[in-house]
Amino acid sequence: MASTKTWTAALLIIGDEILSGRTQDRNVAQVATWLNVQGIRLAEVRVVPDVLEKIVAAANALRSENDYLFTTGGIGPTHDDITVDAIAAALGVDVVIHPDARTILERYYATRGGVTDARLRMARVPDGAELIVNKVSGAPGIRHGNIFILAGVPHIAAGMLDALTGTLEGGLPVVSVTLGGMVPESEVADLLRETERAHDGIAIGSYPFFREGRVGANFVIRSESQEDAQAVADLLQASLESAGYQVVMGGV
Amino acid sequence: MASTKTWTAALLIIGDEILSGRTQDRNVAQVATWLNVQGIRLAEVRVVPDVLEKIVAAANALRSENDYLFTTGGIGPTHDDITVDAIAAALGVDVVIHPDARTILERYYATRGGVTDARLRMARVPDGAELIVNKVSGAPGIRHGNIFILAGVPHIAAGMLDALTGTLEGGLPVVSVTLGGMVPESEVADLLRETERAHDGIAIGSYPFFREGRVGANFVIRSESQEDAQAVADLLQASLESAGYQVVMGGV
Repeated sequence: MASTKTWTAALLIIGDEILSGRTQDRNVAQVATWLNVQGIRLAEVRVVPDVLEKIVAAANALRSENDYLFTTGGIGPTHDDITVDAIAAALGVDVVIHPDARTILERYYATRGGVTDARLRMARVPDGAELIVNKVSGAPGIRHGNIFILAGVPHIAAGMLDALTGTLEGGLPVVSVTLGGMVPESEVADLLRETERAHDGIAIGSYPFFREGRVGANFVIRSESQEDAQAVADLLQASLESAGYQVVMGGV
Repeated sequence: MASTKTWTAALLIIGDEILSGRTQDRNVAQVATWLNVQGIRLAEVRVVPDVLEKIVAAANALRSENDYLFTTGGIGPTHDDITVDAIAAALGVDVVIHPDARTILERYYATRGGVTDARLRMARVPDGAELIVNKVSGAPGIRHGNIFILAGVPHIAAGMLDALTGTLEGGLPVVSVTLGGMVPESEVADLLRETERAHDGIAIGSYPFFREGRVGANFVIRSESQEDAQAVADLLQASLESAGYQVVMGGV
């Protein structure tokens, strides 16, 4: 069960539409959840505008600090789709037409008016890249070493993640056990701190909420070991109940 | 109408719960929308874990590149709430108890069991800070120069933004006009590019979607001038319609 290395990934979201507030991001949560199943931790997210230098700088910073870099957005056929150019610039390689991507697009657009110059943009990849299958629409995702270039539309990104499942090296997934109730976290802060300190490899997060004028919190116990997480959750539940609080395993 | 300076802000989200995928972020969109009304562009977002050095590094990078830095998360009473310590470290100032914050907490907790050591943590600020009113719960937000430290719980953050409305120097808001229809963006990529190029101060974003097996897109025309945005939207609508597409002002 010993995992010596913690594998990490960063997510770079390319999108004026997120930064303008127009579009609610859905990719952070789904990439995070998927990564965790692969035994990889999402260690940082950045959202940058559709500006080449900003994407290049963020991509280089994030890939140097993590095992993997995922990007979402900016791989369509229009002028604001510059992710491939930016990643190629970050890697110092040329942009080339991938022959298999061209074939995929030719097949996909055979009954949709054929491959135009604009559509052929979606076959462009950083030189040396492989493709990631897109089961949903035509244009594939792109893998270049430890960089994964995904679509921005969440269900297309989901399909690409699905195609990558099981192909990345990782460690142990983090499991979590949640415990919650109408407990003001400020009343149990010491207990939470001491419980976390007393257990190596355990992290406890406290997430307050306000409902119907009352305060409560969920306490999330995270570990690479299901047994350890559950044991600490049981202990915390017993401590909270003996202090007079009602809490529910699973959270509220 | 001439705006010589574009004011920018960055948002730093402090939260293991976002990076684990457990919690869907709601603060990017609301901070972005609020900033735009103040005439300030959200230029970058970073999400980092509850790790002091990560918060310090991100805060320093973001505040050096932007007029304002907003943070959300990590200002509660528990051991995982380390935002104040991190921002103080980034600024190179001490953490002190703000007397007004102590008074606010004493009043708030008078009927709720009094101010404990854990609760007093929420009166800690980087030395030199002012408070941001929290109308929703007890603990205030914190302003230190061009840094704004907000709660992570979205509706508390919203109340703090509300308290800041009109107090920040900004330029002109970006207005947008949206046009959409069942138009495959790959068929109109050239038209979009040429329309954007022909109009200074205009940016056109293309956001595809898939519904009931068909592809469509919304085209968002952004500008600091409502008149310019609408004029370009009208022009684009006419061009798309003369090319045989049905589009609707306002988007679909």
